[in-house]
Amino acid sequence: MFPEADAVAPAVTAVFTAVLTEGPISRVALARRLDLSSGAVTKAARPLIDLGYLEELAATERTGPGAGRPASPLAIRADSEFFVGVKITADELIGVVCDLRAQVRVSAHRRLPVADADQVLTQLGELVDDLLDGPGDYRARTRRLGLAVSGDVDPITGLVRYSPFLRWHDVALRERAEKITGLAVTVENDVKALTIAEHWFGEGVGAESFALVTVGAGIGCGLVVGGRLVSGAHGVAGEIGHIGIDVDGPDCHCGSRGCVEAIAGAGAIVRQARLCSGRPSLTFEDAVELARHGDVAVCEVFARAGDAIGAGIAAVANLVGPARIVVSGEGLAAYDLFEPHIRAGFQRRAFGAAADCPLSIRPLPFEEWARGAATVSIKALVAAG
Amino acid sequence: MFPEADAVAPAVTAVFTAVLTEGPISRVALARRLDLSSGAVTKAARPLIDLGYLEELAATERTGPGAGRPASPLAIRADSEFFVGVKITADELIGVVCDLRAQVRVSAHRRLPVADADQVLTQLGELVDDLLDGPGDYRARTRRLGLAVSGDVDPITGLVRYSPFLRWHDVALRERAEKITGLAVTVENDVKALTIAEHWFGEGVGAESFALVTVGAGIGCGLVVGGRLVSGAHGVAGEIGHIGIDVDGPDCHCGSRGCVEAIAGAGAIVRQARLCSGRPSLTFEDAVELARHGDVAVCEVFARAGDAIGAGIAAVANLVGPARIVVSGEGLAAYDLFEPHIRAGFQRRAFGAAADCPLSIRPLPFEEWARGAATVSIKALVAAG
Repeated sequence: MFPEADAVAPAVTAVFTAVLTEGPISRVALARRLDLSSGAVTKAARPLIDLGYLEELAATERTGPGAGRPASPLAIRADSEFFVGVKITADELIGVVCDLRAQVRVSAHRRLPVADADQVLTQLGELVDDLLDGPGDYRARTRRLGLAVSGDVDPITGLVRYSPFLRWHDVALRERAEKITGLAVTVENDVKALTIAEHWFGEGVGAESFALVTVGAGIGCGLVVGGRLVSGAHGVAGEIGHIGIDVDGPDCHCGSRGCVEAIAGAGAIVRQARLCSGRPSLTFEDAVELARHGDVAVCEVFARAGDAIGAGIAAVANLVGPARIVVSGEGLAAYDLFEPHIRAGFQRRAFGAAADCPLSIRPLPFEEWARGAATVSIKALVAAG
Repeated sequence: MFPEADAVAPAVTAVFTAVLTEGPISRVALARRLDLSSGAVTKAARPLIDLGYLEELAATERTGPGAGRPASPLAIRADSEFFVGVKITADELIGVVCDLRAQVRVSAHRRLPVADADQVLTQLGELVDDLLDGPGDYRARTRRLGLAVSGDVDPITGLVRYSPFLRWHDVALRERAEKITGLAVTVENDVKALTIAEHWFGEGVGAESFALVTVGAGIGCGLVVGGRLVSGAHGVAGEIGHIGIDVDGPDCHCGSRGCVEAIAGAGAIVRQARLCSGRPSLTFEDAVELARHGDVAVCEVFARAGDAIGAGIAAVANLVGPARIVVSGEGLAAYDLFEPHIRAGFQRRAFGAAADCPLSIRPLPFEEWARGAATVSIKALVAAG
């Protein structure tokens, strides 16, 4: 993509990333920040300016008396390119168009009657067309589509190896989505995509290490250590939902027992709330309703779930020691029922100074998942140098 | 230490590290491995050759017909410098002299009647003199001493903030040890020191990620992710001993309950074995003896401990996904009693492909801790460029 890509790539990518996540920033500050010479920064920035991704802002301040030329900070041109992001769930596609700064410009949903791969891909093509051809005229400046799927995903090949909620096995999602949309497609696990978004554009910016815990049907975790997403040498990492915290706990679908997810996943909460309310068709929303109206037994179900999530988070803090932890996910729409128990469960088990790790606990609009998917395609652009 | 240290340091350190851990290795292979130009490798290697740390081996093979000059691999001169390593325990100092390749040349022990810091430092001075002035004549080529201590240690300042086994609070160990020995001293947590040794010179060589779990009085863990030791943004990491695996488990000295260490630490095993044998003064060695003679209840104590260690290891594999895990420590002198239960406990809780992570379970001679301490001082030499 860039001229002389082989020779300049690492510095170009480093400059692009730093301006994107921390800009506007002067060349001098970039050189210091990236441990590069100012000549190397200038050389790396040039193709990015020529291609329209970066611009030089007007000089605003001198760095001190006699400090030479005023600094002209480099900034991202947010509307130089747009990115589609789609989160694929078992019953819905959620799509957004983001600009280069990962700001959502437009969004759209599509119900999925069935999660069969053929049907999903047809609907995906239509959703992308709706997003790009609607108001905003994004089509001309959009080349990339990011897809986020729960489960075991290979971002290198774009293969969805196994997605339990979708019941997909070995779906060549990237290849098929590229054929249907004509866009360059990235495929990533949904929790990892969200972690990348949070690391580049959210609470994780500038953090050397960082964890995002998602609470919903599953309990997931994305980890950034040494500035990089941990993906696991054997393809497994961040499986906070399958840390065993109770040797006598309930059986888990993974084959073990007493896992965090077997106590705190949405399905586990519904199961326990049905038992203690005696209502066999009660939903998650019903359980929330009961708890908010003071049903002691159902409150206790949420308390146990929050404690289990806190135990999982303490394991992350005790083992990896991230600078901060964000707890989010659609399950946290019932934020008020979980939050104090998550904090107490964490504090009780955090070892020594691990208890100092700040927790942000907040609900997550479902569109954020789609924005996460778009962020992965932004990252692919940045790495393409 | 090196001329023009500021300009060449990163490449010099990278070349030194690669030759040390993976050499002998040709300049061409080094350039490829480190993503450097061959000119940069040659430039970085020169001061290391001049200082006597590296040597050029005789050319042994051509890389192919017409491949130009035969490659002369770079190798470490193991006896160019020696390093003292000392592990400080509550009742003993264990010291070694290692060469630059971390091979132990000589070792010595000293009983400590008391673990009072003044006494320990006096004994340390004598132990170092014994090691350096004995046969081998290491004194002239030794400038560095590495110390390893359990507990909360700040390697930057050389302060032992808190060591529970030694009952030390805020001991300025580096400063005091430098005054007594005249050597340049590094201070590191013992588990981290051992992890560095395993990563540079043991089973962790070449692994991008790697975990070392130590079993003894405490249950510890050192983690390497992205090629770097994880130290935790809040100073806590690798606390596998304080992962809670049983909500109804025994109280732990950390204030929580059901921690791995509260079930599987040497103290916990002795406590449980005393209870079920009815022998209030039974020792760890007695417990091992009883189990090996088939005492069913005491065997069950070891089985439960092994299962708890396996649960902790599964948490590491599920969260971080290291390429391999080594389980070691003085507790594994009773290897035969633990091993099958560690493996079964791990397999039962490892999520999906996390179960593919190879476990090496082996006892650890106590001298290895001292070698780990020496390795930290080798690393300090390498980083000093």
